[in-house]
Amino acid sequence: MPRFPRIDPSTAALPGSLFSKLGHKLAAWTGELYPLHIGDTWMEPPPGCRMEDLTVAEYPGLHRYTTVHGYRPLLEAITERVGRLQGVPTEPEQVLVTAGATGGLSALIRTLCSPGDEVLLIAPFWPLMRSATLAMGGTPVPVPFFEQAHDPRSAVEAVEAMRTERTVAICWNTPHNPTGRVIPPAWLEALAVWARKHDLWVIADEVYEHYRWGGAHVYGRSLAPERTFSAHSFSKAYGMTGNRCGYLVGPEAVMTAVRRVTTNTVYCAPRASQIAALRALEGPGDRWAAEAAARYAELGSDAAARLGVEPPRGSTFLFLDVASALDERGLDGLLFDLADEGVFVAPGLAFGPYPHHIRVCFTAAEPAIVRRGIDRLARRLAGRDDAPTGEAR
Amino acid sequence: MPRFPRIDPSTAALPGSLFSKLGHKLAAWTGELYPLHIGDTWMEPPPGCRMEDLTVAEYPGLHRYTTVHGYRPLLEAITERVGRLQGVPTEPEQVLVTAGATGGLSALIRTLCSPGDEVLLIAPFWPLMRSATLAMGGTPVPVPFFEQAHDPRSAVEAVEAMRTERTVAICWNTPHNPTGRVIPPAWLEALAVWARKHDLWVIADEVYEHYRWGGAHVYGRSLAPERTFSAHSFSKAYGMTGNRCGYLVGPEAVMTAVRRVTTNTVYCAPRASQIAALRALEGPGDRWAAEAAARYAELGSDAAARLGVEPPRGSTFLFLDVASALDERGLDGLLFDLADEGVFVAPGLAFGPYPHHIRVCFTAAEPAIVRRGIDRLARRLAGRDDAPTGEAR
Repeated sequence: MPRFPRIDPSTAALPGSLFSKLGHKLAAWTGELYPLHIGDTWMEPPPGCRMEDLTVAEYPGLHRYTTVHGYRPLLEAITERVGRLQGVPTEPEQVLVTAGATGGLSALIRTLCSPGDEVLLIAPFWPLMRSATLAMGGTPVPVPFFEQAHDPRSAVEAVEAMRTERTVAICWNTPHNPTGRVIPPAWLEALAVWARKHDLWVIADEVYEHYRWGGAHVYGRSLAPERTFSAHSFSKAYGMTGNRCGYLVGPEAVMTAVRRVTTNTVYCAPRASQIAALRALEGPGDRWAAEAAARYAELGSDAAARLGVEPPRGSTFLFLDVASALDERGLDGLLFDLADEGVFVAPGLAFGPYPHHIRVCFTAAEPAIVRRGIDRLARRLAGRDDAPTGEAR
Repeated sequence: MPRFPRIDPSTAALPGSLFSKLGHKLAAWTGELYPLHIGDTWMEPPPGCRMEDLTVAEYPGLHRYTTVHGYRPLLEAITERVGRLQGVPTEPEQVLVTAGATGGLSALIRTLCSPGDEVLLIAPFWPLMRSATLAMGGTPVPVPFFEQAHDPRSAVEAVEAMRTERTVAICWNTPHNPTGRVIPPAWLEALAVWARKHDLWVIADEVYEHYRWGGAHVYGRSLAPERTFSAHSFSKAYGMTGNRCGYLVGPEAVMTAVRRVTTNTVYCAPRASQIAALRALEGPGDRWAAEAAARYAELGSDAAARLGVEPPRGSTFLFLDVASALDERGLDGLLFDLADEGVFVAPGLAFGPYPHHIRVCFTAAEPAIVRRGIDRLARRLAGRDDAPTGEAR
């Protein structure tokens, strides 16, 4: 019984920050910081789409609630865009403006899952998808995927092996955080057929839709619109992570319920953030995203080459097996050593059963800084003797 | 089993908007609108604290994530202020910046309640406290309070009558939405003693702390800091409802868990909104709130006089028993008639077992508009013949 001083046991068991072990080192570091651990961008949002561009004179009531559903002009712009890009007829009632993709996905889990219901997560997964499932009462079930799937058939075999009577949904994200891959359309088509066969919901996290180069991408809703929700983010699209604005699209009857959940968790997305997003959609957003994609592609490719791995096809991440660089201290030892040089990376266990992997974001700081950080990382992975400083060892 | 096309039954049962019945009338209305139904303010935020005042030049990374905990300078300013106003030693680790008070309260319910656990809500209650409790897996238990409580003893008797083995928390809000009352300190002291006796948590919703005139106010944390959470809102304090920024304060161990919940529901409060709040706290906020309070007091007093009820002591609302103005159509009939004149009010059932009450907000539009709306309402309540237009009847 969660009476004072006890709380709900499932909440007490929620995972903490990925970076909590490194928090004190991050706080103490005074040199040049290489923040390769967090998914963000160094680029400011497009001109005209910044807070300083939004005036009360132009937008009376700029600081007041919107409806829970969203700012109407933004809803209409999203609806038009989603219908066009995804090739699926879409109505505003199928769209909900959310507090980032995060806000939409967590409310969706709450809507779909009764306690104990299982959500299959293509692994490695986005860490917040696991913790959001836990926080909203579902049971996340990682599906080791990229190591098993080589074609549509093996992709289905990978998820089918983890399906149980309690499975209610499958969740994928593509372009993929953390591997930098883009899941081939034929695989997704096969997964959609399989989901339909088993009456499962589909959750397609597509927040990196703008960031891919090489490899075709297919939107989940184009495969099974009756059962698929797609999550999108202005954060990732236009460099507005701190604005907390994104959207969720899906079947109308369920979206009405999701809207009722979000009424209670955030009420509405921030109005200024919604207007900023609209200005990006209607103005410089596409050009900004295209420029960002070109720069991200170059940075990702260079980082991969320096680290000796395949270049990313999308997203803003690389996922590296660093087993050969670990000593008896395991991954923590490597993370601490790197932190002692100002290099912060995310531990593989945050993304599933990957105790020897790290995730590297190549866009969270100015390119020159990222390059120096990647260089430090590469030298550390190549061998201790090659490291730039030796005193900590 | 919530498989396609079914969803979680408890989500499917969540209440919809208070105003859904009136939505089509609101959308269709083309005359002067009297939005007495929603809690908001006509005032723009203080100069210097608006989005247009926040520049990338002054705040590099203005559109990027903050930590989940919050923007550090804001956390420090909140901590200092809370310690001073509430008279309780407070550390930043006890504070969480949230997506409005709403975001904090819903995450708190998720943290405190296992499924089926009961939260006593002083009634009439704030509607979102009921639905947030439902949405986050708890069971809201309304306590008809203001009609029963006349002194500390009867206040305790009212809540004790509804306590069960599943009760984990009591929630009050003061200054009170919707009645405009301020709960007397002696009553709250008695409730805190009772909560301690029964190992209950205390949730004190204090978002209208700035808006009271006449009648002493006591902060919940000053009575039982070891078990009390207080919710606060920059929305209500400084006219920033659309910014989605507030804060929650409480015992550190639990606040760490609440932080983990909000990581998944919103990640962090919007950075620009946090900076705007800091600028208000450090600059013109107090003066703005004092001016607002003076104007609200006058408006509330005039509205009460026109409607023939006691003037409000705080908040921005009046809660009226309109039984004598209802015909065979009940409250819906009155709401529809009022909507036909552009006057929108909130139905009493949204606030508990009050089928013959309405809530009126006297601050959501320019004072002159509110006065005209109150006048139309008063004439309608006084009798049909006195109404300004008769054709709809």
